Amino acid sequence: MRMVDLIEKKRDGGILSREEIRFIIQGYVEGQIPDYQMSAWAMAIYFRGMVTEEIAELTLAMAESGDEIDLSVLEGRFVDKHSTGGVGDKTTLLLSPMVAACGVPIAKMSGRGLGHTGGTIDKLSAIPGFKVELEREEFLRQVKDVGLAVIAQSGNIVPADKMLYALRDVTGTVPSIPLIASSVMSKKIAAGAQGIVLDVKFGSGAFMSTLENARELAKTMVGIGKTLGRDTIAVLSAMEQPLGNAIGNAIEVLEVWKALQGKGPQDLVGLCIELGALMLIAGRKVNDIDEGRGQVLATLENGQAMTKFREFVRAQGGDLTALEQGSLPLAPLRATYCAPISGYVQQIDARKIGHLSMVLGAGRAAKNSEIDLGAGIYLHKKQGNWVEAGEPVLELYTSAENKLAEGWKLAEKSVLLGPDKPVCTPLIAEVIR
Amino acid sequence: MRMVDLIEKKRDGGILSREEIRFIIQGYVEGQIPDYQMSAWAMAIYFRGMVTEEIAELTLAMAESGDEIDLSVLEGRFVDKHSTGGVGDKTTLLLSPMVAACGVPIAKMSGRGLGHTGGTIDKLSAIPGFKVELEREEFLRQVKDVGLAVIAQSGNIVPADKMLYALRDVTGTVPSIPLIASSVMSKKIAAGAQGIVLDVKFGSGAFMSTLENARELAKTMVGIGKTLGRDTIAVLSAMEQPLGNAIGNAIEVLEVWKALQGKGPQDLVGLCIELGALMLIAGRKVNDIDEGRGQVLATLENGQAMTKFREFVRAQGGDLTALEQGSLPLAPLRATYCAPISGYVQQIDARKIGHLSMVLGAGRAAKNSEIDLGAGIYLHKKQGNWVEAGEPVLELYTSAENKLAEGWKLAEKSVLLGPDKPVCTPLIAEVIR
Repeated sequence: MRMVDLIEKKRDGGILSREEIRFIIQGYVEGQIPDYQMSAWAMAIYFRGMVTEEIAELTLAMAESGDEIDLSVLEGRFVDKHSTGGVGDKTTLLLSPMVAACGVPIAKMSGRGLGHTGGTIDKLSAIPGFKVELEREEFLRQVKDVGLAVIAQSGNIVPADKMLYALRDVTGTVPSIPLIASSVMSKKIAAGAQGIVLDVKFGSGAFMSTLENARELAKTMVGIGKTLGRDTIAVLSAMEQPLGNAIGNAIEVLEVWKALQGKGPQDLVGLCIELGALMLIAGRKVNDIDEGRGQVLATLENGQAMTKFREFVRAQGGDLTALEQGSLPLAPLRATYCAPISGYVQQIDARKIGHLSMVLGAGRAAKNSEIDLGAGIYLHKKQGNWVEAGEPVLELYTSAENKLAEGWKLAEKSVLLGPDKPVCTPLIAEVIR
Repeated sequence: MRMVDLIEKKRDGGILSREEIRFIIQGYVEGQIPDYQMSAWAMAIYFRGMVTEEIAELTLAMAESGDEIDLSVLEGRFVDKHSTGGVGDKTTLLLSPMVAACGVPIAKMSGRGLGHTGGTIDKLSAIPGFKVELEREEFLRQVKDVGLAVIAQSGNIVPADKMLYALRDVTGTVPSIPLIASSVMSKKIAAGAQGIVLDVKFGSGAFMSTLENARELAKTMVGIGKTLGRDTIAVLSAMEQPLGNAIGNAIEVLEVWKALQGKGPQDLVGLCIELGALMLIAGRKVNDIDEGRGQVLATLENGQAMTKFREFVRAQGGDLTALEQGSLPLAPLRATYCAPISGYVQQIDARKIGHLSMVLGAGRAAKNSEIDLGAGIYLHKKQGNWVEAGEPVLELYTSAENKLAEGWKLAEKSVLLGPDKPVCTPLIAEVIR
């Protein structure tokens, strides 16, 4: 087999076989196929697409390209959740203890933030002492004992995806549904998930700006899951404005802590109940969505989610002292953006807020950038709220004066006020299963 | 400017500006833009194409990527000819002395053969002592003194094309009209041509198998030439069967020698008269095609082409002793393929004969393969000829028994005989100017 022939086959609209796809992925990881052939192949996929069987084979070949987590040594049916990335998206932190408290164990590997979107691992790092890296044995023991562990994606999980993603990022081949879908699903499968719940976001702050594209991506991923025998359900959720009111790292953990006390923002809690109910279905704990909703909501009301969260954080070395007092260190420089006129909040643009958060130091412009765990934004108002002239809308937190000055300009552009009450779209547009 | 943005611009169907194209080509040659971005860009061009202005800018940026030959220090208007490659295509060897004898100087850089197609430089190497490499000063002096020099493309002429072509070859991006056209034209322009005559071949033995594709390529190249102020004319010529009767290196030089004596095969001579007449037009020596034909034909009849050929070969160190006796050393092992039945020659497949020639040792399977200058094929018959059962059709020449055995099998498959006289298509289908 020659790679050039397989590039030409895809270029001409052919369907690659299992053997051909494995030849490509193995050859790439082993260094026999160079970047310049992979990027041409990726561009051919961008234009020609892939059929479901091809995407499933690609997913499996990538999942098997490095280490895999074998969760079958543990009891229970493991369900993983994946979000395509958003602004203020702290669902993993709130949802995981809720679902684990219902008896569906969570053994999760998460990522760091990049660009305008945050990452779960950065948020957890804001808890003093929290270890985001565990040896495999420690990880499995904690899952067994606590029913919940969340760690950073470790060294040799899906190396093919790491290599291919880095290449796509610089060759104009990121926005290809087959490549995005196989990238996401390969990591979930390598991590041992038997059930997968996908939160596919659309809107200004999402990777997919339109509902149509998000739907296509969701359908593709659900198709891969079905082909590979995983119970897979996707939710299409809006990311026009940030989720919840806190954006950053420490500040988002604080919001989760309040939510675990039953004082969380409505959109965040609502989404977690929906995703949690679907995770119970994918985990075959319940058959019915209403039953699922009831069970996960109960964990907030009866304190079981909070108990699970405390166990989880302590097991990974986290110090809860500050949180128990309702605080975590936030960045010292603060500024409040107040409404220049009275009116309804028409929009708080998620992408712009994400960018602002990055500028304040809470996110990464490049993979190796340092981040300021105390930096971030608090939204006093959200879309549809009435605000009086002079009333606070955004609170900015940062550690450097120049960042505050730059952030201030972006803050002004992120908020749109107007005289009429806007029509707010529902957070969840569709469920695809 | 970032290369990834330019890849995305082309991917999305945008038109690249002069500055953007120069950024890409200069960056690639200087090593700032890696192969993996170039190959993705080339694949985007494969799918999206380029408008004439873009292709002209790409051509110019490539032509200027390395050394250029400045022929303006010499007198006269320089015209170059390019063939897109065929089997038995020795037109440069015959045509150049004809045109030079008419007073249009030829300062030509040629290539070596690859795959089933031959190369002028290999053919010239079959003349004992012939130097295919000259220092620039020697080259220019010979053009001044003799009016004709043909050398191998030297080190740093159009390095961008060398790099890009090698990359395209392994990334499925060879068959893209804008990339083919700019590759050809950049070399002609870097070599200082003011007029360019293109022999774009179509058919089984050609790079473009259909007349339609050949026409598109020809129109694109003529468009580049016009945009860049070069008198450019293209001929679409058939390459269904080999040109002339000899295929190889020494054996083709012998055929040219006979043609210079007025005993050449009709198709070869006819094509050279046509191309020669157009070169006189592009060289602004004549205004009228008939006048051009008359002048180039006369050089064969009055011996001036032969005189020019002798001067040219001697100037480059070639020893004419063997040729003057009507011979050149051919490979020692020979086999004759005779017709198994009586009939008309329906076809002698150019691609199969080209492949056979390579198998016998006359061509290169890979760029670094050694070639056997004495190996080759002689066609006793051509399309439309009647042949009696047992009469010779092909003569094979090689130096190794195993090659003869392998060649024999291919010989059988190259020739098709049948009872009815086939309709022979004219050699020249169109002239595009």
